[in-house]
Amino acid sequence: MMEELTRETTRIALYDSTLRDGAQAEGVAFSLNDKFAATIRLDELGVDYVEGGYPASNEKDKAYFEEIVRRPLKTTQICAFGMTRRKGVRPEDDPGLAQLVASSAKIVTIVGKGSHFQAREVLGATLEENLAMIEETVRFAVDSGKRVFFDAEHYFDGWSDDSAYSMETLRAAIRGGAEAVVLCDTNGGTMSPMIGAATHSAVEVVQKFERPVVVGIHAHNDCGLAVANSLAAVMSGATMVQGTMNGLGERCGNADLLVVAANLALKFNDRYDVLTPAAIERLAAASRFFYDLTNVNPNAGQPYVGKSAFAHKGGMHVSGINRNPASYEHVPPESVGNERRILVSELSGKSNILACAKKYRLDEDGSLDSETVEKILDAIAEKENQGYQYEAADASFRLLVKKIRGEFEPSFKRINYQTSVAVTVINEKYTDAKTVATVKLSVGKRGEIRHEVAEGDGPVDALNNALRKALEPIYPELREMKLVDYKVRVLNSDAATAATTRVIIESRDGEEGWGTVGVSENVVEASWIALCDSIEYKLSKAVRDVK
Amino acid sequence: MMEELTRETTRIALYDSTLRDGAQAEGVAFSLNDKFAATIRLDELGVDYVEGGYPASNEKDKAYFEEIVRRPLKTTQICAFGMTRRKGVRPEDDPGLAQLVASSAKIVTIVGKGSHFQAREVLGATLEENLAMIEETVRFAVDSGKRVFFDAEHYFDGWSDDSAYSMETLRAAIRGGAEAVVLCDTNGGTMSPMIGAATHSAVEVVQKFERPVVVGIHAHNDCGLAVANSLAAVMSGATMVQGTMNGLGERCGNADLLVVAANLALKFNDRYDVLTPAAIERLAAASRFFYDLTNVNPNAGQPYVGKSAFAHKGGMHVSGINRNPASYEHVPPESVGNERRILVSELSGKSNILACAKKYRLDEDGSLDSETVEKILDAIAEKENQGYQYEAADASFRLLVKKIRGEFEPSFKRINYQTSVAVTVINEKYTDAKTVATVKLSVGKRGEIRHEVAEGDGPVDALNNALRKALEPIYPELREMKLVDYKVRVLNSDAATAATTRVIIESRDGEEGWGTVGVSENVVEASWIALCDSIEYKLSKAVRDVK
Repeated sequence: MMEELTRETTRIALYDSTLRDGAQAEGVAFSLNDKFAATIRLDELGVDYVEGGYPASNEKDKAYFEEIVRRPLKTTQICAFGMTRRKGVRPEDDPGLAQLVASSAKIVTIVGKGSHFQAREVLGATLEENLAMIEETVRFAVDSGKRVFFDAEHYFDGWSDDSAYSMETLRAAIRGGAEAVVLCDTNGGTMSPMIGAATHSAVEVVQKFERPVVVGIHAHNDCGLAVANSLAAVMSGATMVQGTMNGLGERCGNADLLVVAANLALKFNDRYDVLTPAAIERLAAASRFFYDLTNVNPNAGQPYVGKSAFAHKGGMHVSGINRNPASYEHVPPESVGNERRILVSELSGKSNILACAKKYRLDEDGSLDSETVEKILDAIAEKENQGYQYEAADASFRLLVKKIRGEFEPSFKRINYQTSVAVTVINEKYTDAKTVATVKLSVGKRGEIRHEVAEGDGPVDALNNALRKALEPIYPELREMKLVDYKVRVLNSDAATAATTRVIIESRDGEEGWGTVGVSENVVEASWIALCDSIEYKLSKAVRDVK
Repeated sequence: MMEELTRETTRIALYDSTLRDGAQAEGVAFSLNDKFAATIRLDELGVDYVEGGYPASNEKDKAYFEEIVRRPLKTTQICAFGMTRRKGVRPEDDPGLAQLVASSAKIVTIVGKGSHFQAREVLGATLEENLAMIEETVRFAVDSGKRVFFDAEHYFDGWSDDSAYSMETLRAAIRGGAEAVVLCDTNGGTMSPMIGAATHSAVEVVQKFERPVVVGIHAHNDCGLAVANSLAAVMSGATMVQGTMNGLGERCGNADLLVVAANLALKFNDRYDVLTPAAIERLAAASRFFYDLTNVNPNAGQPYVGKSAFAHKGGMHVSGINRNPASYEHVPPESVGNERRILVSELSGKSNILACAKKYRLDEDGSLDSETVEKILDAIAEKENQGYQYEAADASFRLLVKKIRGEFEPSFKRINYQTSVAVTVINEKYTDAKTVATVKLSVGKRGEIRHEVAEGDGPVDALNNALRKALEPIYPELREMKLVDYKVRVLNSDAATAATTRVIIESRDGEEGWGTVGVSENVVEASWIALCDSIEYKLSKAVRDVK
């Protein structure tokens, strides 16, 4: 024990590439707003570096770098991704590089070939030209005022064929001024012992330089080893880990930074310093946030943060857990913000309740007695059974708690609504579409009847327009509010269009953004529920602000 | 290379626990017939041992062992799972053990505590009693004519606290007559270096005995390391790997035997002999079989066997692949029975289209000249500008190419459609909702008019029902097809409900699954487009099949 206490603690930096490598995952695309939301969330988590995109590749990424510089970030530094100059072109004449150094990012990450085979066979360059491409590109970026990280692509495959050359590519980057060299297992095909050995030799390379240079690891999961390989590199001296949220990425994905961080923080007796303990307790919430953002189905068995990660089903396991949780749990679920679930019995122990209370911060104002907490938990359990999920719908959750506490007074009640879409083909080129909605509401304490009709671009838009038309004369503050995102998710995919549908709406006014959720078999009704919650939350805020 | 060739090849036995540990996964249950089908499939694959179940735990498992002995198996040996005798009870008086040795299985796998802490704190036994429980139970089974494998539960946690005691539990089992001792990382919390060290010391324990004893590994994935830990144990001398198909299992699951087998067969220069090369080429098919059997959503990013495992999206990657597949693939997809997929997306350049055209055999007749490719590229660029995305919509992509080449003949044309949702609040508890759709189509070459109406759970479900009602009398093959997934995504989230909406529908018939996409400001119209593409694709397939 004393030995552990006296051992040096090494700081490990996390470098998140969800917005670049993660965007290469099948079915994933980020809107500009998604990118901002992701960056802010990663900053809140305390991730050291966020690779925001590839400014030379598309307009959206360019716009991201123009805007992100104006957002205040607490811990995260933004990196722009780019490639070494093209063969036979001077860095200053390479348009991609020009866009890269013109971006607002203070750090640029430059990828180049770290392998003999790749340089010769894929790039078609001489070995010397590849080294020159690396060194000159890095120097050009450094001379343009950037800090530079060098991603050595195919480093491990290269090292296994011709280790001397791969190590030479690192030296070229360092001579050019790189402050970090990141060893990439681009194809994800390397076994862990070789990752360890190659990282060790890279550490020896950088130690020959006078100034400190960081060694990083960038692992892919094609052999199911992305996490293991990231850890193997760290144990061999790497101090930066690149990866993505939930392991999102091309093919089998990247190293899941959430799992790497949990392992480093909880499994090495404080040998590594990664994120803060409070951030480790928010890993499960961060995971859910990124599943919602990317509209990817959560992996229930995801280590540490998955819904089933602490779910116990076998009878022997459940009785063991009841005697001592350590009998079938390697860490307490709360340590990563997750919760224990007992699948065979409905019995939910006290620890389950406490975990939930913590998850939803129910006792923030200290006024919640244990009876109310029980009621809230029952209500949540029932809602979650129906398909509700409050992780991305904080406003709906707060309204739910208000309702249970008897503190909710609806600003309006619906009497009925109707919406229809009629599409008629006029000719080859022209189609006539009419979308209309009516709403009939009883508004305010006096129950004033408002019956309005409006058109829209779709049934939900039309409903929103009619709702606003009915409510804004009475609640003019609704004009400050707008809907900024709308997501639909089918929960039971066996039945497809007849399945249960969850709608999440994100709204914003001048002050803040908030999420609401609705669930129904009918996408229109699910949207209605989320819309109404969004409006009620805005109105409850106004009342609170007036007080 | 010569060194590799002269090195000894070690045979690694695979022990599948899908039917026992896999059945502990959330949402998984096997019928008796499922268990037979799974066993036969595992036998065909050449898995050495199949743990069929726990005869003392339920009637279904008991029935399985009664029947499976009558099924002819080629390579697989069946194992029955059970526990050490209860504390203070003689083995011959333990009813669970009686059922275990009465089962038809020639091999029984007996689990006992391999840890000081677990024996004392969870079992409540003395350390000596735990050793006696292990040795006596194993001896009882051996004396009853069984071959015995001993699963040392919590072995690694125990070894880290009190290695001498954990090793003593192995000796007890071997003295009792066990022919294999399997080291279990029951909670999945152990880091790979400790797995290697503990396995090495277990190998030293068994080598002290005169008769050969196998050391096995049983790893769980709670740290994302189940595959890595299985490999670490094999590299330290374990020659049996326990795991499950697709990594199914309690919490985060067990080691995925498919991935372990692929790694051992393809990544160690013939140092390990595992399954046959022909079986390795059937891993992807085996994976799909077990997803179907268990009704679990396939993990697209699953190493080696997932749908996305060889899917390429980034333009740089695709052009690299076209030059040399090894540039972004660690093994050829065919080596594990998988296939390369080129995704068409906003990140893709010309190389993706050409690769796609090749994959879909668009140039089967050699008529795809560069002019047509340009046209396709232009059309895709225009469609992507509108918000279309083809990577999850291969069927829509094929139809688009057909249209551009003038080869598309629509099976029906719409004249109009209408859909409406009307919701009326009756009282606090009850809300009346009516969703209805009408479609008017001109069908087939003769332009027969079909005008139909149907209800549904939502506007899209109602439209789908009306479309089917109109088309199925003329195209009865549509009855084979069903919608299996439906996803909605808002593209330009600044305008929220008035923004562009992309709908992706996944359909399936008896043969294959296909994706289609629709984009519109109106979610109903976007859904309509994707629905119509899905139906047209099914019908074009039928025509092709007839030819």
